[in-house]
Amino acid sequence: MIILGIDPGLATLGYGVIEADNQKRRLIQYGTLTTPAGQPMPQRLRAIYQGMNQLMDIYQPEDVAFEELFFSKNITTGINVSHARGVALLAVVQRTENLYEYTPMQIKQAVTGYGGADKHQVQQMVKILLNMKEIARPDDAADAIAVALTHANSMNMKKLFKIQ
Amino acid sequence: MIILGIDPGLATLGYGVIEADNQKRRLIQYGTLTTPAGQPMPQRLRAIYQGMNQLMDIYQPEDVAFEELFFSKNITTGINVSHARGVALLAVVQRTENLYEYTPMQIKQAVTGYGGADKHQVQQMVKILLNMKEIARPDDAADAIAVALTHANSMNMKKLFKIQ
Repeated sequence: MIILGIDPGLATLGYGVIEADNQKRRLIQYGTLTTPAGQPMPQRLRAIYQGMNQLMDIYQPEDVAFEELFFSKNITTGINVSHARGVALLAVVQRTENLYEYTPMQIKQAVTGYGGADKHQVQQMVKILLNMKEIARPDDAADAIAVALTHANSMNMKKLFKIQ
Repeated sequence: MIILGIDPGLATLGYGVIEADNQKRRLIQYGTLTTPAGQPMPQRLRAIYQGMNQLMDIYQPEDVAFEELFFSKNITTGINVSHARGVALLAVVQRTENLYEYTPMQIKQAVTGYGGADKHQVQQMVKILLNMKEIARPDDAADAIAVALTHANSMNMKKLFKIQ
């Protein structure tokens, strides 16, 4: 099964594609979609939507997992990320309803076995689990791979987004 | 010129359509797109995107004006509104780049001449300016009409979204 993991963002959206069968995990691809800070919001959203459609075309994922949004940092960032996350979700739901979301704590728990793990520990575990030579860069891509792995490792994959 | 005004929201997105030529203003239509609270976010976003496309099909607006987002109230609401606003902006920018945004204060200033006006005063002025028999309901629709009027009345229509 091909799983696409998404770490949403407006300036940088991370993606990670893995293949998961039973206990096997294989890294297929990872990277980022980026939009320039100098561009107006609507054009940036259009670029993200197009990029997400290309990812869906290329990798044809069966399931797509998104990192859930928290606003610990900064409201402006939160507004921007939410705009981008909206169009990314739209691009996916127009093709499949196999959409899942995981909180940062669920991701840490699933990947390292410890919900309080730090970013570096998560990245090290992702590298080990997928036999990568180096830690994935940038962080957004590494986080996206971790979301995809979390979904693969999730025993009871609850169908999806919680009702708001 | 046909102007579509949008007051973004996830549960209720308000829209208002006016025709503006020189000093003439005519109300064409207003209403809301609504999505049920019980539905998962991706499906709600898809419904808003489809609804926005229908509005663009039906009214063929030359310009589209959005209310700018502020988070004075509640972070969860802010996240939801931003997701919805993202897909609404996407639906528009896929057809036209004549997209504008106005802050609540700009809207109050443009419609009532006073940036500190309250909601009820804005609604009363909208009613008077457009020769409506009653105040538009719900508030989201009234706000959307006010955004469209603000755009019509704006002397120096700055092209669009500020660079972030």
